[in-house]
Amino acid sequence: MEKIQIAVLGLGTVGSGVKNILQEKKELLKERIFQKTGLEREIEIKKILIRDINKVYDVDKELLTEDFEDILNDDDIKIVVELIGGNQPATDYMIKAMKANKNVITANKLVIAKSNGLLEKVAKENDVRFMYEASVAGTVPVIKVINDSLVGNSISKISGIVNGTTNYILSKMTNENKSFEEALKSAQDLGFAESDPSSDIDGDDSLYKIAILSKLAFSTEIDLEKISKQGIRHITKTDIENAKNSNKRIKFLAQAEKKEGKVVISVSPVEIDSKHPLANVEGAMNAVCISCDNAGEIMLQGAGAGSRPTASAVVSDIFSVASKL
Amino acid sequence: MEKIQIAVLGLGTVGSGVKNILQEKKELLKERIFQKTGLEREIEIKKILIRDINKVYDVDKELLTEDFEDILNDDDIKIVVELIGGNQPATDYMIKAMKANKNVITANKLVIAKSNGLLEKVAKENDVRFMYEASVAGTVPVIKVINDSLVGNSISKISGIVNGTTNYILSKMTNENKSFEEALKSAQDLGFAESDPSSDIDGDDSLYKIAILSKLAFSTEIDLEKISKQGIRHITKTDIENAKNSNKRIKFLAQAEKKEGKVVISVSPVEIDSKHPLANVEGAMNAVCISCDNAGEIMLQGAGAGSRPTASAVVSDIFSVASKL
Repeated sequence: MEKIQIAVLGLGTVGSGVKNILQEKKELLKERIFQKTGLEREIEIKKILIRDINKVYDVDKELLTEDFEDILNDDDIKIVVELIGGNQPATDYMIKAMKANKNVITANKLVIAKSNGLLEKVAKENDVRFMYEASVAGTVPVIKVINDSLVGNSISKISGIVNGTTNYILSKMTNENKSFEEALKSAQDLGFAESDPSSDIDGDDSLYKIAILSKLAFSTEIDLEKISKQGIRHITKTDIENAKNSNKRIKFLAQAEKKEGKVVISVSPVEIDSKHPLANVEGAMNAVCISCDNAGEIMLQGAGAGSRPTASAVVSDIFSVASKL
Repeated sequence: MEKIQIAVLGLGTVGSGVKNILQEKKELLKERIFQKTGLEREIEIKKILIRDINKVYDVDKELLTEDFEDILNDDDIKIVVELIGGNQPATDYMIKAMKANKNVITANKLVIAKSNGLLEKVAKENDVRFMYEASVAGTVPVIKVINDSLVGNSISKISGIVNGTTNYILSKMTNENKSFEEALKSAQDLGFAESDPSSDIDGDDSLYKIAILSKLAFSTEIDLEKISKQGIRHITKTDIENAKNSNKRIKFLAQAEKKEGKVVISVSPVEIDSKHPLANVEGAMNAVCISCDNAGEIMLQGAGAGSRPTASAVVSDIFSVASKL
């Protein structure tokens, strides 16, 4: 049995999810790799990078390290899964890993959206794979669908609910007649919103995600500073009521559209018809509609966040790389 | 520039769609293969099998042949795309192609559902690929999602609207208060239903599709004869009204569920809550919900039939094979 050895950077919400799924589904993944490739392979975590080795983790101590060099210098490690988040040291680690001939998988939307194709370039130069399905809309396999399933199409528009926190807040306001502040409080109490919720409710999180999808669909780099962006802080009970009275719903949409050769991106609350497929996406769910010339309109919906849903998307990338090494 | 040469069997609705997309997107596909693999490759149709060479086709005559042996004996052809449909000669052609070391792609749900894993077995024995995304739910990338995106999950249930004709009829009955007969007539006038619509409205078509999904999700062969199946002929205006009055919708669902270790499959009209994601899938659209342990519930929606939508799914399989040869 050949072992595909991987390292996981970070053991937070998503990192623990990845560790758990890889443990619990070890046999299933082995079978699936065999079915797909005819090869006897199993995926094994060899190292996990954590910040404080003295903290108590539910993991074999042997696996843990505080030193990224331990991972970088280990030639048996073929895949590095970056789940620290944030700009640095995540970016440095990913670049170093690629230069050391390791494939990289990440869920780090910020780095991908802001790095202007740098990571893709380094991956290409070093002939390694760089995958990031989990960076947009959690379990919703939107990146694979754009890259593979819709490959014979020209995409004209992508429109999505890609932030669960704001969709939860708007759903709560719509279905339970709550004010923005009440709905935000409820999201915070349930752990759907952070104590500083600005990245979600002011639209930065959605902006990073639509920038990533737009780059894939339209093959253009995007200047994040130039994108029109409006959050949901100002939405009132009256706005919600007025929309309902005209059979509409207010949804926080991230959109990218090709118009006369130019890609126009926006992030803002939009009134959509209550029959529109995105109108009925409730709570913390995410959904993306993709319009294209041959396949018509496709909609994908699923959990946008959470330990296991996000980890499920990371594991699909690990499987994909492990099947092709 | 390396050419990946393919043969297309059949030049009907889907076959013409595939030919058109491959012509129109030649450059795009070349770019995408290069992006994905770094290889300079283009996909080229070398032969098209048709029944009557004297019929007028909108294709270079040089490409056409009435004789499958021309394709079988051409070692340059690496991919055979079977779009004749029906059991024979489609099955023979696919098996012969695989034995001649050619990869096979098909949209033939009947053969896959009824052949009890034979084609997969022959593909494995001959170390070629066998792909069939277009066989279930047209553009909806449900096979890729089960095989790849949800690989780190145990699936518990699949529930889908996988037949556009019956969904069109039920939508028409629900939204326009038509009788079954009136709605069927309208579907036939628009070309959504065939003059003999029994395979759609009695559920055989849905049965083949859920059998395929079930086999992929639960790794079990299915005895089609044993599946409980009920069509929609008996649905009355009163049934539709009663459902609406209790905030429900009647949808024709194909379902497969794992219960106590056993897989239970059914095809029947079901009353579902009007808030259920499948309740709002209208007209000839298809949609599939997949419930699993880590990713939670995922829904995929798109055009279930038609020349270009179905061909778009076939082209994604061609791309996938062409990227890996």
